[in-house]
Amino acid sequence: MPKQFSRLVDAETSTFQATALRVTDASVFAKPIVIASSDARFIVAEQLAQSGVAADIVLEPSRQDSAAAVAVAALCAAKRDPSTVLLILAADHVIGDTEAFRAAARDAASGARAGHVMTLGIQPTRPASDYGYVRPGPVLDGLSGLHAVERFVEKPDKAGAERLIAEGALWNSGYFMFRADVMIAELAAHVPDVLAAARAALEAATSDLDFIRLDAAAFAKAPKTSIDYAVMERTSRAGVLPVSFPWSDVGTWDAVWKVLDRDSQGNAVRGRVELVGTTNSLVHSEGEGLTTVVGLDDVVVVATPDAVLVASKARSGEVKDLVATLRQKAHPEADAHRRMYRPWGWYQRIDIGERFQVKRIMVTPGGRLSLQKHYHRAEHWVVVKGTAEVTVNERVVLVHENEAVYLPIGSMHRLTNPGKIPLELIEVQVGSYTGEDDIIRVEDIYGR
Amino acid sequence: MPKQFSRLVDAETSTFQATALRVTDASVFAKPIVIASSDARFIVAEQLAQSGVAADIVLEPSRQDSAAAVAVAALCAAKRDPSTVLLILAADHVIGDTEAFRAAARDAASGARAGHVMTLGIQPTRPASDYGYVRPGPVLDGLSGLHAVERFVEKPDKAGAERLIAEGALWNSGYFMFRADVMIAELAAHVPDVLAAARAALEAATSDLDFIRLDAAAFAKAPKTSIDYAVMERTSRAGVLPVSFPWSDVGTWDAVWKVLDRDSQGNAVRGRVELVGTTNSLVHSEGEGLTTVVGLDDVVVVATPDAVLVASKARSGEVKDLVATLRQKAHPEADAHRRMYRPWGWYQRIDIGERFQVKRIMVTPGGRLSLQKHYHRAEHWVVVKGTAEVTVNERVVLVHENEAVYLPIGSMHRLTNPGKIPLELIEVQVGSYTGEDDIIRVEDIYGR
Repeated sequence: MPKQFSRLVDAETSTFQATALRVTDASVFAKPIVIASSDARFIVAEQLAQSGVAADIVLEPSRQDSAAAVAVAALCAAKRDPSTVLLILAADHVIGDTEAFRAAARDAASGARAGHVMTLGIQPTRPASDYGYVRPGPVLDGLSGLHAVERFVEKPDKAGAERLIAEGALWNSGYFMFRADVMIAELAAHVPDVLAAARAALEAATSDLDFIRLDAAAFAKAPKTSIDYAVMERTSRAGVLPVSFPWSDVGTWDAVWKVLDRDSQGNAVRGRVELVGTTNSLVHSEGEGLTTVVGLDDVVVVATPDAVLVASKARSGEVKDLVATLRQKAHPEADAHRRMYRPWGWYQRIDIGERFQVKRIMVTPGGRLSLQKHYHRAEHWVVVKGTAEVTVNERVVLVHENEAVYLPIGSMHRLTNPGKIPLELIEVQVGSYTGEDDIIRVEDIYGR
Repeated sequence: MPKQFSRLVDAETSTFQATALRVTDASVFAKPIVIASSDARFIVAEQLAQSGVAADIVLEPSRQDSAAAVAVAALCAAKRDPSTVLLILAADHVIGDTEAFRAAARDAASGARAGHVMTLGIQPTRPASDYGYVRPGPVLDGLSGLHAVERFVEKPDKAGAERLIAEGALWNSGYFMFRADVMIAELAAHVPDVLAAARAALEAATSDLDFIRLDAAAFAKAPKTSIDYAVMERTSRAGVLPVSFPWSDVGTWDAVWKVLDRDSQGNAVRGRVELVGTTNSLVHSEGEGLTTVVGLDDVVVVATPDAVLVASKARSGEVKDLVATLRQKAHPEADAHRRMYRPWGWYQRIDIGERFQVKRIMVTPGGRLSLQKHYHRAEHWVVVKGTAEVTVNERVVLVHENEAVYLPIGSMHRLTNPGKIPLELIEVQVGSYTGEDDIIRVEDIYGR
């Protein structure tokens, strides 16, 4: 599962949810705009709903890098008011002090309102070679505490990082703050193709209850470039506010370990874990299983019901190479995860054998699956929680907890949760082929 | 799962099965006697059946160490014929050359027939400090190639091992060979209490179709002592046959790794595994899950659907401490495993939630569960393979593949496989309590 949606750092809240919750103070922030990959739409909606955060969700039909995303955000905000001040936040960072963060946002906003493109510069706590740096210049006119940016510096080696810190450089957080009209003017000046593509994609966007879907053909024309390279390193308006709250971009497992609570042996554990003679390690056990580690130092172990990762913490950056290898070899774990989120809820496979498959399915109140049929499998549904409204051909029946219904091969069927509590059922599929693609959708309220 | 029943070394055959298959040549060996813990009875019977090996299975109601087990074996064999020659084999060893092993058994038998208590001494291939040693003395009278035992030596340190090997000492394999009447006489001389307890336990034993069950009260009186200490180190009749087949007692994960096939990086892998920058490691992934290891040397990773072990290979001996810790903390994984073997087949839990539980159940042809009822749960059975004969109160129905049956709370029910192929079904339990102990057994063909 993409890092920002997983509960690695906090058992209850993903970093995406923590990011959304960080900007809910209505005296400081307006309703957020979430720019997300189209693939992530259901989990974005689900996690926002879980956290009780209302947001506009804009879906990118393809990945065009951060300049295009920022252009879309600026154009959306400018529709509200061209002088709206935007704060750009990554969804996968950890911030240790929400109050300090809010205070920083308020301070940087004064620079943004004055026409600067502000960034937050984090006071370094170690000579990190995995972050970019920003060197502050003179104080901005009439804006006490805010500095012009002297220059941005790419990720240095360790010696370079030590030199930069001695010179007063700060970590480049990637949090930017600016007026919508200012950013639009900067994009027009430096990357007009990006701005044009974003504008066209937004103008031709379609909206439904939950999502604003950018036009795929128009958006695909945006050149792929980062906002740092496209604007921040070129603009004459760059400003920086030095801040010192605890911060991590959680870019490696080592960085995750650093932000977690650790015991006296230096271990950060979660879930059913038992350690013997093990130190300075991160051990995360999801689900019911027990994870044990014996006689190791400085390792990362993440065990979930569908995959296990064991890595040297020092070399956890190589996990990226691993994911590339998995993609190349077409292992589904590279991108898929066990619980599949859908507009109506989720499902997960719990068993599979020759000629059968078993799933657990959750449908949110009001959720409604498509009207569908299968050519190669029959299905048995046993309701274990809530009430299901089941359509089978011409018949509609209510199926309550501890009741079952049978859907013969080829029958036209539909599942709805008409109730007020989540519906959970066990689906037993029996047939010669149980692949996801044996599904004929006849009608779907989610436009799939 | 106890090591001897798991498929760690070979994906198809446990070391217990390999041990049983090693003595199937009827021109050399009679029908084997398996002495097993009562807890292991179903898996012993299941694995013997899978391997097509017929054996007498004697169940120990408590663990009394190896002298008592050997006494029971000798007394059983003496009933056939007091001069029967017995070969004692541990179930958790690996032997690389079955033909050489059989030849050794034939050679040692001549010493046993002549009244010696023979052991096989393995030619050492490294100065092991985790094996005991045996020093051969002069050749036995008229028995070319067989030596008297000069003495047995406890596990030495590495320097001691090097010295012993230079002196011509051999590894003590723990394989013993003797006439039944000779061993009974030796036991009577050295540990008469052990012999008396074994005799009483066998005389009061009960037999059913599958098992001979030793009397618990009588057997519990056997002093706990090993056959090495009780007889081998004291008898004047000890003899040793030096042999040189590849052998391991697979006593640690490091030893398991040593007997497995390894790739050019020194890795022994099994199942869905992907390694990046990893060397000299054993990685074993059971079930559907993917296991990945990044940037580590000399580790053991064993991932199964219910537990994950990650250990330094050099320190894998400490796994024993881990199991002790798990027992102390009452983690079920210390002794239980996910697939629970029963006289009629097996079951495993595949999902559990609030007020429900899902199991996959396999019933062997002819298998018959007890007539039973539950006070707190109803059950839905969906047959996914084979045919079930289901009794529900007064009614008996046949349930075929892709058919389901419902068992209300409190109904008297029974499941039988009347067919010729294994029966598999998915059981969905729904109710306020789904623990194993909500079961009232009214009748059971297995005497439970």
